[in-house]
Amino acid sequence: MHAEQIIGTHPDVKGQVNDALIRCIEECYDCAQSCVSCADACLVESNVATLRQCIRLNLDCADVCLATGAIATRRTGSNEELIRSMLESCALACRLCAEECGRHASHHEHCRICADVCRRCEEACEGAVRTVGFAH
Amino acid sequence: MHAEQIIGTHPDVKGQVNDALIRCIEECYDCAQSCVSCADACLVESNVATLRQCIRLNLDCADVCLATGAIATRRTGSNEELIRSMLESCALACRLCAEECGRHASHHEHCRICADVCRRCEEACEGAVRTVGFAH
Amino acid sequence: MHAEQIIGTHPDVKGQVNDALIRCIEECYDCAQSCVSCADACLVESNVATLRQCIRLNLDCADVCLATGAIATRRTGSNEELIRSMLESCALACRLCAEECGRHASHHEHCRICADVCRRCEEACEGAVRTVGFAH
Amino acid sequence: MHAEQIIGTHPDVKGQVNDALIRCIEECYDCAQSCVSCADACLVESNVATLRQCIRLNLDCADVCLATGAIATRRTGSNEELIRSMLESCALACRLCAEECGRHASHHEHCRICADVCRRCEEACEGAVRTVGFAH
Repeated sequence: MHAEQIIGTHPDVKGQVNDALIRCIEECYDCAQSCVSCADACLVESNVATLRQCIRLNLDCADVCLATGAIATRRTGSNEELIRSMLESCALACRLCAEECGRHASHHEHCRICADVCRRCEEACEGAVRTVGFAH
Repeated sequence: MHAEQIIGTHPDVKGQVNDALIRCIEECYDCAQSCVSCADACLVESNVATLRQCIRLNLDCADVCLATGAIATRRTGSNEELIRSMLESCALACRLCAEECGRHASHHEHCRICADVCRRCEEACEGAVRTVGFAH
Repeated sequence: MHAEQIIGTHPDVKGQVNDALIRCIEECYDCAQSCVSCADACLVESNVATLRQCIRLNLDCADVCLATGAIATRRTGSNEELIRSMLESCALACRLCAEECGRHASHHEHCRICADVCRRCEEACEGAVRTVGFAH
Repeated sequence: MHAEQIIGTHPDVKGQVNDALIRCIEECYDCAQSCVSCADACLVESNVATLRQCIRLNLDCADVCLATGAIATRRTGSNEELIRSMLESCALACRLCAEECGRHASHHEHCRICADVCRRCEEACEGAVRTVGFAH
């Protein structure tokens, strides 16, 4: 992805990108795609009835990740309080999805991969939230 | 919208819809559309340079509202902790956007309407969060 | 929804709203919500294995409807060729989803409602595409 | 991104991934992020009034790219006709955005990068559409 490169050209950023936030943005888009894919793969498994909670958490996680990725991308003006709130919601969505996918990881490779991607995104959100100032 | 009608047919809901959540879902989709529209209208105003913060908050608010509307719609399994977190993030996004739109309401009718819609959505999110149990 | 009211205040629209497009925008957001809800309800049905295609079309339709609703909302500058293309994609997504939901309408009330909403959105997209000029 | 890895584990794919579609999916998410970022950077430029069309096309392109990326990710059941239609809409959105960004590329580095990313995504969509069968 080109997140670092393009955000670095924002007139208010001038190359001083927040590395933790850049990593978080890229993980959010990656995680959204993985969650859409895992929900879709779960749907054709023969034991789909036992994967309902997994599919639901996948879909929720994808929605939060995309919103968070877009909001974290913007640098015009400021919205730190919302960025923090969304990074926390996103870390939560990723943790819950990773836990549920993890329960199916030994049976379904897509759940194993998705759990890994969710964990990476959870960590990236937590890393980013520590770098976002509150008082703006 | 058909949110109440269709969610009422979910096998686990069986007509016992949560009225506060239904209202919240409908406000979220309405608010997303209004925020996309207000950002777009701000962009052609002659004083666009003074509306940058407004446009940015509009776009952020639209993203959060859509994610919240989808997540609040789902009734399969459970994800109450995330629903609560997103309802709180969404109420915050709406409040911040309403405050900024409110500053331009006397000059721009789209900002006046958008501030109203955001306030309605903020209240609906706050009303809904009180109805969503935490321990599931 | 407030689509007509807020788009009517756009400086380049000045109250001369395109009624067919306004209806289409509102149907798109309504249909997105219904499709998210129908996919979610299908997922807990005991015959979920026979509803896989329905769930998949629901999810695809929701994605197209949201993108179309946002794109059709914008009035700044022009993008008629893309609006036309997306209205056509959206009408297609709605038709395919309505056909599949229709197959399950006698067994599942959510599929019956969703098929109706998809048909309304399909017609609204087709009505709107006739009003959008190509040469801009 | 993990698109190839996770889609390869879908029970109906069994490792036989469509390379052109995988590339397209990754470009769609990348392009969505770049377009959100370019719109945001344009907004703070001193000549924002001359970048209105660019911002509008950026926002439209981001919306189409995200919907296309999700739809192209799904492998359950089939929806080839819609995938084709969306790939064509997405190639169009990317081309129009690349052309407009290209006009500002010499003045704004974010427009130069975004035009490049849009061109890559346009080509990837065109490459993918040739691999998606129509008659399903």
